[in-house]
Amino acid sequence: MLSGAVHVGFTVRDIKAATEFYRALFEAEPEVRRVYEAPYTGEQVGYPGARLDVAIFKIPGSEMRLELIEYLDPRGAPVDIETKNPGTAHLCLRTDDLHVAYDRMIALGATARSPAPVRITSGPNQGRHVCYFRDPEGLTIEVLEMARVPAPA
Amino acid sequence: MLSGAVHVGFTVRDIKAATEFYRALFEAEPEVRRVYEAPYTGEQVGYPGARLDVAIFKIPGSEMRLELIEYLDPRGAPVDIETKNPGTAHLCLRTDDLHVAYDRMIALGATARSPAPVRITSGPNQGRHVCYFRDPEGLTIEVLEMARVPAPA
Repeated sequence: MLSGAVHVGFTVRDIKAATEFYRALFEAEPEVRRVYEAPYTGEQVGYPGARLDVAIFKIPGSEMRLELIEYLDPRGAPVDIETKNPGTAHLCLRTDDLHVAYDRMIALGATARSPAPVRITSGPNQGRHVCYFRDPEGLTIEVLEMARVPAPA
Repeated sequence: MLSGAVHVGFTVRDIKAATEFYRALFEAEPEVRRVYEAPYTGEQVGYPGARLDVAIFKIPGSEMRLELIEYLDPRGAPVDIETKNPGTAHLCLRTDDLHVAYDRMIALGATARSPAPVRITSGPNQGRHVCYFRDPEGLTIEVLEMARVPAPA
């Protein structure tokens, strides 16, 4: 019945700033950058007359898209994006070199939840390194290094 | 620097109920179902000593995973998951027949934001049908029908 994943969408406060961050991170222009305000959009999202300012990026190395949405109308209220809170989300991206990615994320204005990449000590990713970041909007991006062969269990 | 998308993660209130819903929706067992409580986990997510009850599903037709997490410690507070609110997220899945998927989602306990699938009237998905659902936790799952050939622009 289901036949794939299309995109992950995040609602943002400031579409311009969020678009700048992901343009720099992905080193690519968004595939779509426009306001959605046709009647079908409000019907779809459940807010009649909704106006959404949207940027859609292809995630490098993936067929998945990242969709960023600022609701122009109706406006929402920012939620507390601590990942412990039910209803929050994160996106996990893959890298070949997390130490490079770590420095890059920080240089672009993200913050890290740990002072350095963390080594995974058990499970299927044992021996790999991982890090949770918050982008400048506060959205959580996890980056997992997958180039190294995991250590034997 | 980035080389793919690994998973999208949602923090849930009730991991058992959420796991049941996605097991039924995906018609598959989770690939991982266990508590993460090794010291590296707390370091990774930025809450020292954290204990996370986790289910990871392969999304049908995709290499992406859906990760469901209940924070056992620290506990969080549910956020207002209205998609207009900055910080909320949604996952868009693909189907070959949205009318079948619509009935299935409702039968499994999801609610729809529109009384029927909505026809997209402009843009690259013109002519396709789409629907926003809330799963029983309140998480937003968008389902896009991609089998039909879009109408000419």
